[in-house]
Amino acid sequence: MASTFVIYVMICLVLCFLSSPIAQAGDPDIITDFVIPVNATLDGSSFTFTGIRNLYETYPPPTFRLTKIGMKEFPALNGQSVSMAILDYPAGSVNPPHTHPRSAELLFVIHGCLDVGFIDTTNMLFTQTLEAGDMFIFPKGLVHFQYNNDTEPAAAVSMFGSANARTVSVPTSVFTTDIDDDILAKSFKTDVATIQKIKSGLAPNPKA
Amino acid sequence: MASTFVIYVMICLVLCFLSSPIAQAGDPDIITDFVIPVNATLDGSSFTFTGIRNLYETYPPPTFRLTKIGMKEFPALNGQSVSMAILDYPAGSVNPPHTHPRSAELLFVIHGCLDVGFIDTTNMLFTQTLEAGDMFIFPKGLVHFQYNNDTEPAAAVSMFGSANARTVSVPTSVFTTDIDDDILAKSFKTDVATIQKIKSGLAPNPKA
Amino acid sequence: MASTFVIYVMICLVLCFLSSPIAQAGDPDIITDFVIPVNATLDGSSFTFTGIRNLYETYPPPTFRLTKIGMKEFPALNGQSVSMAILDYPAGSVNPPHTHPRSAELLFVIHGCLDVGFIDTTNMLFTQTLEAGDMFIFPKGLVHFQYNNDTEPAAAVSMFGSANARTVSVPTSVFTTDIDDDILAKSFKTDVATIQKIKSGLAPNPKA
Amino acid sequence: MASTFVIYVMICLVLCFLSSPIAQAGDPDIITDFVIPVNATLDGSSFTFTGIRNLYETYPPPTFRLTKIGMKEFPALNGQSVSMAILDYPAGSVNPPHTHPRSAELLFVIHGCLDVGFIDTTNMLFTQTLEAGDMFIFPKGLVHFQYNNDTEPAAAVSMFGSANARTVSVPTSVFTTDIDDDILAKSFKTDVATIQKIKSGLAPNPKA
Amino acid sequence: MASTFVIYVMICLVLCFLSSPIAQAGDPDIITDFVIPVNATLDGSSFTFTGIRNLYETYPPPTFRLTKIGMKEFPALNGQSVSMAILDYPAGSVNPPHTHPRSAELLFVIHGCLDVGFIDTTNMLFTQTLEAGDMFIFPKGLVHFQYNNDTEPAAAVSMFGSANARTVSVPTSVFTTDIDDDILAKSFKTDVATIQKIKSGLAPNPKA
Amino acid sequence: MASTFVIYVMICLVLCFLSSPIAQAGDPDIITDFVIPVNATLDGSSFTFTGIRNLYETYPPPTFRLTKIGMKEFPALNGQSVSMAILDYPAGSVNPPHTHPRSAELLFVIHGCLDVGFIDTTNMLFTQTLEAGDMFIFPKGLVHFQYNNDTEPAAAVSMFGSANARTVSVPTSVFTTDIDDDILAKSFKTDVATIQKIKSGLAPNPKA
Repeated sequence: MASTFVIYVMICLVLCFLSSPIAQAGDPDIITDFVIPVNATLDGSSFTFTGIRNLYETYPPPTFRLTKIGMKEFPALNGQSVSMAILDYPAGSVNPPHTHPRSAELLFVIHGCLDVGFIDTTNMLFTQTLEAGDMFIFPKGLVHFQYNNDTEPAAAVSMFGSANARTVSVPTSVFTTDIDDDILAKSFKTDVATIQKIKSGLAPNPKA
Repeated sequence: MASTFVIYVMICLVLCFLSSPIAQAGDPDIITDFVIPVNATLDGSSFTFTGIRNLYETYPPPTFRLTKIGMKEFPALNGQSVSMAILDYPAGSVNPPHTHPRSAELLFVIHGCLDVGFIDTTNMLFTQTLEAGDMFIFPKGLVHFQYNNDTEPAAAVSMFGSANARTVSVPTSVFTTDIDDDILAKSFKTDVATIQKIKSGLAPNPKA
Repeated sequence: MASTFVIYVMICLVLCFLSSPIAQAGDPDIITDFVIPVNATLDGSSFTFTGIRNLYETYPPPTFRLTKIGMKEFPALNGQSVSMAILDYPAGSVNPPHTHPRSAELLFVIHGCLDVGFIDTTNMLFTQTLEAGDMFIFPKGLVHFQYNNDTEPAAAVSMFGSANARTVSVPTSVFTTDIDDDILAKSFKTDVATIQKIKSGLAPNPKA
Repeated sequence: MASTFVIYVMICLVLCFLSSPIAQAGDPDIITDFVIPVNATLDGSSFTFTGIRNLYETYPPPTFRLTKIGMKEFPALNGQSVSMAILDYPAGSVNPPHTHPRSAELLFVIHGCLDVGFIDTTNMLFTQTLEAGDMFIFPKGLVHFQYNNDTEPAAAVSMFGSANARTVSVPTSVFTTDIDDDILAKSFKTDVATIQKIKSGLAPNPKA
Repeated sequence: MASTFVIYVMICLVLCFLSSPIAQAGDPDIITDFVIPVNATLDGSSFTFTGIRNLYETYPPPTFRLTKIGMKEFPALNGQSVSMAILDYPAGSVNPPHTHPRSAELLFVIHGCLDVGFIDTTNMLFTQTLEAGDMFIFPKGLVHFQYNNDTEPAAAVSMFGSANARTVSVPTSVFTTDIDDDILAKSFKTDVATIQKIKSGLAPNPKA
Repeated sequence: MASTFVIYVMICLVLCFLSSPIAQAGDPDIITDFVIPVNATLDGSSFTFTGIRNLYETYPPPTFRLTKIGMKEFPALNGQSVSMAILDYPAGSVNPPHTHPRSAELLFVIHGCLDVGFIDTTNMLFTQTLEAGDMFIFPKGLVHFQYNNDTEPAAAVSMFGSANARTVSVPTSVFTTDIDDDILAKSFKTDVATIQKIKSGLAPNPKA
């Protein structure tokens, strides 16, 4: 009886996480060696992720491709304060300006070349051109971007000190979420027509 | 001799903070009841800030006015994890989309009406119209804005759970810091002319 | 079925918080952009507090009045590490010595004058007289008080770096909770009659 | 040359800590396995404290005796988030109501009997009579006391989850630090004569 | 109805903790003054532990004896970031090399003499011989041990800045958990026979 | 003059870090967007690491090769709570049992196959065989190992949620640091000859 309720509660917590309309951010401490969903077998496979074995069967992708492996994709990362992403940039593609609300990003270039940059809270821009084997650290909470300004594709692995490194994309947050045109025109000191032009070019709001 | 060095070191630490090219963010714990700069008298005045007694001699201001009272303006806030700002909005003015890298913002409307909004990490927009006496909480790390869509001025007090709640302004970070036009055009899926139009309207990079 | 249990669990968590005999203190991190009770509509109103629009219909109040807006009154503050209080002091009234177990307090005088003070852990007293527009920071965990030593009423806004800044009032904790008279007499190096005199003057234990 | 400055800086940091007028509280993380003052030999003795070998040559002490072994007495505790105290209670003695700003206290009775109590933030009093071998946990930040209501002496070891568990003593903070008599009389809802009587009985302000 | 679910959920949480196959480690913050299991009476006894009053009826024990009083034995320690252990060493006994994943250990020798040591992350060994009344701090996360190299028994109290100071014992973790002989032989640069000899001498895996 | 002292202090802090006999561990928060050594140019190169461009000119290495890129090698990681390592395993090689005192490890297999395992604090062993593209999470503070049980070399990238993920190697800490043979023989329940045999096979203490 009691164990039934343990299962109910743990199912609920898992469901809360997976299906909640409340977006995720941040990294609390845990009081366990690890946190494993109740329906998972507790053995070595619980700590293993095999979901991207075939990622490079299609390479380069037609547009910039972001493959996140965080707590949502690999639940055993919950509580371990680390996650990663694989980034594939066809020639000329860009990863637009964005922030991660609570985590720095350590980018490791596996293949090709990348132009990268970030802006600090004094509004100073820092840029660099990277080649394969190089790393770049984007500090916590700051706006940053990468650009493959080359004719060859590029690939990188990014690492985060959070199991759940969410993203706030500037173009998407600001121009695809129905913020009033007047507010945006005043904010960017431009006219409504220009705001509408930018909005029309961006894809409709892709709910994360 | 030793006490001379104590003074040197504390002066250095203060100078590091005040004059450093390294921008500030975040809130470490302290190992003291409080932290007071070495040259300050240690009495009740050390914990007092009187710098805005005359703020409302000019009201409303001609444009949106942000008066921050954080660790830089009021050094005794250092280590106490709290700070504030006073926001004055003449009729029709806007506080453009921005984030605070590590702190939520609790806004308390003192006077007038405000339209406010934020976007979460699933790209959902939340908006509200506030009147005097109302409060609104902007969650940590998310893009948010306020707009006085009225013919009367408005005023608010904002409170932060950090002594040093820095700001990343979207228009300033993205469009005044010399990010390459091509990168921005690709990021916003528009043409270079539109990017240049927005850049030209915004003030030159105001170093914070 | 599962979503029913999600609702049960979230109701339980909310009820635990609202009806628990366990008093609240401290601020854990959250793993969500925000935390909203399950029965709340998830829109802009979820992040809005309108409960004190009429607070100043009676001003000044007959005695010192403390209006807290924390996580209990405004649930969306949960996880955001910030809260506030409005303090109204009729002429001659006092906010007695107290501590906040985990939060500093930033006091902003809106109207009138206040004598304030705190004692650090070396037993040094710091005092100051404040006027409208002034701020004072009471460091974390230290005993402090405010006194309106004037013929006019005073008002202040206090800000806390915690969503749940609880209060330990010295007169109430020590003299209204049935601590044995002998223990108090020995602690204060006085006689039982003096302890009983103080106890009799204070209101019966106001359970928080 | 550089190493000379390393020594200067570390001396300064040690001196800052030992001689600073700024009282200590709280526990930051460290970035080292341990922190050892620069002038200490770095061997096993650096991690050893032998200062109380002779403590029980006088037992029981004439009055309540508190022997703290924290970061000040045993510098290697710095950064390790743990410290202790030895408490000796002659018959009939009391450890007056006090708080530790950031640490709970786990009391372990070694000898004799003790009446203990604390008050939570809802103003509920919890008391217990302990005998040798018993433990009691005083939660973080709450007012608590111990009383040896017996004809035999008692002794206890207290443990803290902080290297620097400072104390805010209620009688000392409130009645020996020159807070104005009127403020105290109003706070405790009594007359100035009663306040002055309590003040006169307590020892002059013992600067910690 | 709702309160029934509150009880269910709290029972579940307690059961999760007590019966879970997931081992415990670390110390999250709490949002309550304290955390008490739902079925416990909420009075002074909730904060009292009396389970070792008779510990010293058998002294010295025949082999090294470790008596932990942590969150599992004394649930009110949950959230208070402190716990303890009593260690009894008959003549010639050893507490084998081990780590505590998140907590330093402050050892206080009550009786007898102890040889103690730890190894830092630069592989430097620190050792010391302690006598009654002495203390030694084992820094967080480092391998350490104690040895009673004497003909008399010894006893100590250990204190931890965590309510749940788990132990990773080197002999048990490495040689009793069925790690492949080849892996261990290569790791210790020895032959399989030597690994098997060590495995055979150690007790079968004592599940914690 | 003052700026000279700023430079002295910052040099000292850098030197303290680089040359200190005090080993590093853990991750404090920072109060800056980033931390850059005083003698570094503050531009994009400050956030760039190019030190392993030639790593794979020799592949596979003759024995297991660990290439760490942490705060020591890449100073801009300081305060960003993330670091990495590149691990190269020739056929049949092992990364011996070890712990990282404060960080989990997310292992990403780039090439070849690996047998991996860890032991939790209940002494349960978890093992898995990984192939290229797979990931495995080793929870915080637990003993773990990897083994290339194959005829081809293997390579992996490891990621840590700490800028300074130190290592406690079991063979090195326990058997190369001059812990007394008797203590080890008693700890492992074997004879001194077996201990000495293991010690002789391992390399002399490699100071980290």
